Amino acid sequence: MKLVVKGIERRPEKYLLPLALAAAPMLIGAAESGSAGVLLALAVLLPAAKLAGWLAERVGQPAVLGELLAGIAIGNLGLFGYDGLEYLKKDSALETLATLGVILLLFEVGLESSLADLIKVGVSSLFVAIVGVALPFVLGWAVSAWLLPEHSRYVHAFIGAALSATSVGITARVLRDMGRIKSREASIILGAAVIDDVLGLVILAVVTGMIAGAGAGEPFTAGSIAWLVAKVTVFLAASLTLGLFFAPRLMAHAARAKIKGLMFVLSLSFCFVLAYIAALIGLAAIVGAFAAGLVLQGVPWGEHAAEGERSMEDLLHPVSAFLVPLFFAHTGLQMNVTWLARPDVLVLSLALTAAAIAGKQACGLAVVERGLNRIAIGVGMIPRGEVGLIFAGIGLTLSVGGERIVDDATFAAVVVMVMLTTLVSPPLLQWSFGRKKEN
Amino acid sequence: MKLVVKGIERRPEKYLLPLALAAAPMLIGAAESGSAGVLLALAVLLPAAKLAGWLAERVGQPAVLGELLAGIAIGNLGLFGYDGLEYLKKDSALETLATLGVILLLFEVGLESSLADLIKVGVSSLFVAIVGVALPFVLGWAVSAWLLPEHSRYVHAFIGAALSATSVGITARVLRDMGRIKSREASIILGAAVIDDVLGLVILAVVTGMIAGAGAGEPFTAGSIAWLVAKVTVFLAASLTLGLFFAPRLMAHAARAKIKGLMFVLSLSFCFVLAYIAALIGLAAIVGAFAAGLVLQGVPWGEHAAEGERSMEDLLHPVSAFLVPLFFAHTGLQMNVTWLARPDVLVLSLALTAAAIAGKQACGLAVVERGLNRIAIGVGMIPRGEVGLIFAGIGLTLSVGGERIVDDATFAAVVVMVMLTTLVSPPLLQWSFGRKKEN
Repeated sequence: MKLVVKGIERRPEKYLLPLALAAAPMLIGAAESGSAGVLLALAVLLPAAKLAGWLAERVGQPAVLGELLAGIAIGNLGLFGYDGLEYLKKDSALETLATLGVILLLFEVGLESSLADLIKVGVSSLFVAIVGVALPFVLGWAVSAWLLPEHSRYVHAFIGAALSATSVGITARVLRDMGRIKSREASIILGAAVIDDVLGLVILAVVTGMIAGAGAGEPFTAGSIAWLVAKVTVFLAASLTLGLFFAPRLMAHAARAKIKGLMFVLSLSFCFVLAYIAALIGLAAIVGAFAAGLVLQGVPWGEHAAEGERSMEDLLHPVSAFLVPLFFAHTGLQMNVTWLARPDVLVLSLALTAAAIAGKQACGLAVVERGLNRIAIGVGMIPRGEVGLIFAGIGLTLSVGGERIVDDATFAAVVVMVMLTTLVSPPLLQWSFGRKKEN
Repeated sequence: MKLVVKGIERRPEKYLLPLALAAAPMLIGAAESGSAGVLLALAVLLPAAKLAGWLAERVGQPAVLGELLAGIAIGNLGLFGYDGLEYLKKDSALETLATLGVILLLFEVGLESSLADLIKVGVSSLFVAIVGVALPFVLGWAVSAWLLPEHSRYVHAFIGAALSATSVGITARVLRDMGRIKSREASIILGAAVIDDVLGLVILAVVTGMIAGAGAGEPFTAGSIAWLVAKVTVFLAASLTLGLFFAPRLMAHAARAKIKGLMFVLSLSFCFVLAYIAALIGLAAIVGAFAAGLVLQGVPWGEHAAEGERSMEDLLHPVSAFLVPLFFAHTGLQMNVTWLARPDVLVLSLALTAAAIAGKQACGLAVVERGLNRIAIGVGMIPRGEVGLIFAGIGLTLSVGGERIVDDATFAAVVVMVMLTTLVSPPLLQWSFGRKKEN
C-alpha cells in the first residue's frame, strides 16, 4: 500500500490515533442499539479500562480506580456535548457481561482466600474485622439517617453496608512496597480483611434480602432480619460443608476422566450454580460465587490436572481480564458527576467519607496485643476499593415497589466515598508507619 | 461432617449425580427469568456441552456435533414433560454470550488462517473452492425453490448459503489419523477450505445484507446485489490493507509500553471494532471478526510480548472455551425435533443433504492436476460442521418486515443437513482413500 501524504509515509502510526478519534464519533453515531451496540461497548470500554487501570497503577493507585474513572469519563461525555455512547448506560448486554464479571471476580477472590488461614488468623484479626464491619455500618446508617431523613431505612441500611466493606488489595501492595508485609500489623490487617469479606457479604446478603423482601411486601421486622441471617448462615454453612466434602471427590473423578478442560468447565459451572442458588433464595449472586471459590480453593488442582493442562488460575485469568474491568467501567458509567455540583450531595459524600475513615480507625483499638501500631492497622482497613464499588453497583439494582432504593445522588456520594477512602490510604499508611519508626 | 446413611459414608460421591439430578428440577422450577436465569443457563449448558463434545470426539466426530446435540437434548426436554429450561431458548443474556462466542470463534479461525498460505495454495485449491461454493449454492437454491415454492427467494438464498459452507476440521483430523495429512490431496482440501471460509463469508454477507435491505424496503435487484458485493469487497480489502499496515505498528507501540495484558485487550478490541463496523454496514459481524483475525495473524506476537506474557492463543483459548460452546448449544436449543416427524421437513432435510453431498462431490472434478484421488478431495469438502451451524444460527436472526425468514421447519432441516454431512464424512473419507490404494 502506498500512501501519498508525505508525513504519513514516514511514520504512519503517528496519525492512527487522531484518525481513529476523528472516525469514531461517525461510526458511533450511526448505530447505538441492537446486538451491534455491545460490540462497540466492548471495543471502547476494554482498552479504555485497561489504559486507565495502568495509569492508576503508575501513580500508586489500584487498577480498579482507573477502570472506574474510565467508566465515569465515558459516562459523562454528554457534558462535552457528545452523547453517542449514552446508550451504554442502559445496554442490557453490557450489563450481563458486567454481572458475569463481578461474579467471576468474587469467585477468584474466594479461590485466593483460604478457609484454613481464616481460622488461623487469631483473635486480633477477628476483633479487628468485627469492629471494622460493625462500626462503619452504624456510622453509615447514622450519617444517612441524619442527612437523608426523607429516605427509607433501606437506604440507610444500604449505605451502612457499603461503608462496612474493606478492600485490602491496595494496603497489601503498599505494605509490600514498604517492606512491611511480614509485620504483625500486616498479618492482622490481611487476616481481618478475609474475615471482612465474609462478614461484608453476610451484611450485603441481609440488606439485599431485606430490600427484596420489602419489594415482595414483607415488612422490615426483627423477625424478617433474623430469618435472613438464618438463610445466609445456612446457605454458607451448607454450601461450604457439602462443597468441601463433595467438590474434591467430584474433581478427582473429573480428573480421572482425563477430559481436557473439563475441570475448568466444572469449576465455572459450580460457581454459577452456587451464584444461582444464592440469587434464588434472595441473596446476592456474588455471595454464592465467593462460597464456590472458597470451596474449590481446597481442591488440589495441580495433582488432578490432566497432562499439559494449565492451572485453574491460568485458565480463569484471561476470562476475568476480559469481563471484570467491564464491571468497574460499567459502574463508573452510572455515575453522573453533575450531582457533585449539588451542595447536599457533596456534603453527603464528605460525611460518608469521614464516617468511613473514622469507623475503620476504631479497628486499631480492637487489637488485643500490646506494642503494635494501632493507627497503622486502622488506616490499613480504610480503602473500600472494589468491594465498596460492588456494593454500590448492587445497590443500583435494588428496588421496592418498582422504585429504586438508591437514587443517582446517593450512588454518586457512595462512589465518591469509595474513591476518597481508596485514594487517602497509601499516603496515610506511609505516614503512620513512619510515625511509629520515630517513636 | 458425619453422614448417617451407610452407603453414602463409604462412597459418597456415587450419590452426588442422582442427588443433583433430583434437586435440579426443583431449583430450576423456581426462577426462570431475570439476571439469575443466565447463571443457571451457564451452570447447565457449560458442562453439558463439554461432556457431549468429549463423547462426540470419542466416537470420531467433532466436538461441535456433541455441543449441538447437548443443546438439542436440553431444548427438547419438553417432549418428556419437563419445561423448566424452556426459557433458555429466548434468554437474551444467553444470546449475547452465544453471539460473542461465535464472534470469538471466527476471530480465532482468522488468527489460525494465513493470508500468505491463502495466496500460495495454488490453482487447484482455488478451483476446488470456487466450484465447492458455487455448485452447492445453486443446488441448495434449486432444492429450496422446488420443495418450498411458497417461500421467498430470501429463503432459497439462505439455504444456498448454508450449503456452500465447508468445515474442514473433521477432514483434517481424519486425514491426520490416517497418516494422509501430508498428501497432495490433503493440501488441496485444506487450501480450498481456507478460501472457502472467505468465499462463504462473502456469500453470507451478501445474503444477510440482501435480507436486511429487503427489511428496509429495498428491492432485491441485480443492482442491490452488486452494491452488496462491492460493500463486502471494499470492507474486506480496506480492513485487510489498512489493518495489515497499521496493526503491526500499533502492536509494536503497545508492546513497547510494556503494559501487561494490553496487547490481548487491544486485539480483542480490534476484533470487536471490525465486527461492529461489519454489522454497521449491513454485513454479518463474524465477517469483521474473521478479518480482524486474518490481520492480527501477521503480528509477531512472540517478539512483542512483554516479559512473562503468555501467547495470544493461550490467552484467547480460555475465553473461547467458555463462550464458543455456548453458541453451538444455543443453536441446538432452537431446534425442535418434532418438526422431523413431518414428512415434508424430513424430505427437505434429505434433499438438502443429497444436494450438499453432490455439490461438494463435483469439487474433485475441478482439480487440474492428474493422478489425484478426485473422489477423496470431493468427500473431504463435504462436512458443514460449525460453519454450517453458524449460517443456520444467523439465518434464525434474519427477518423481513418483522417476519422471520427462516422458519422452525427450515431451520430444523438445515441443522439435520449439517449433522448428516458431518457424520458421513469420516467413513466416506476412509472408504475413498482405501479404494484408491487397491487401484
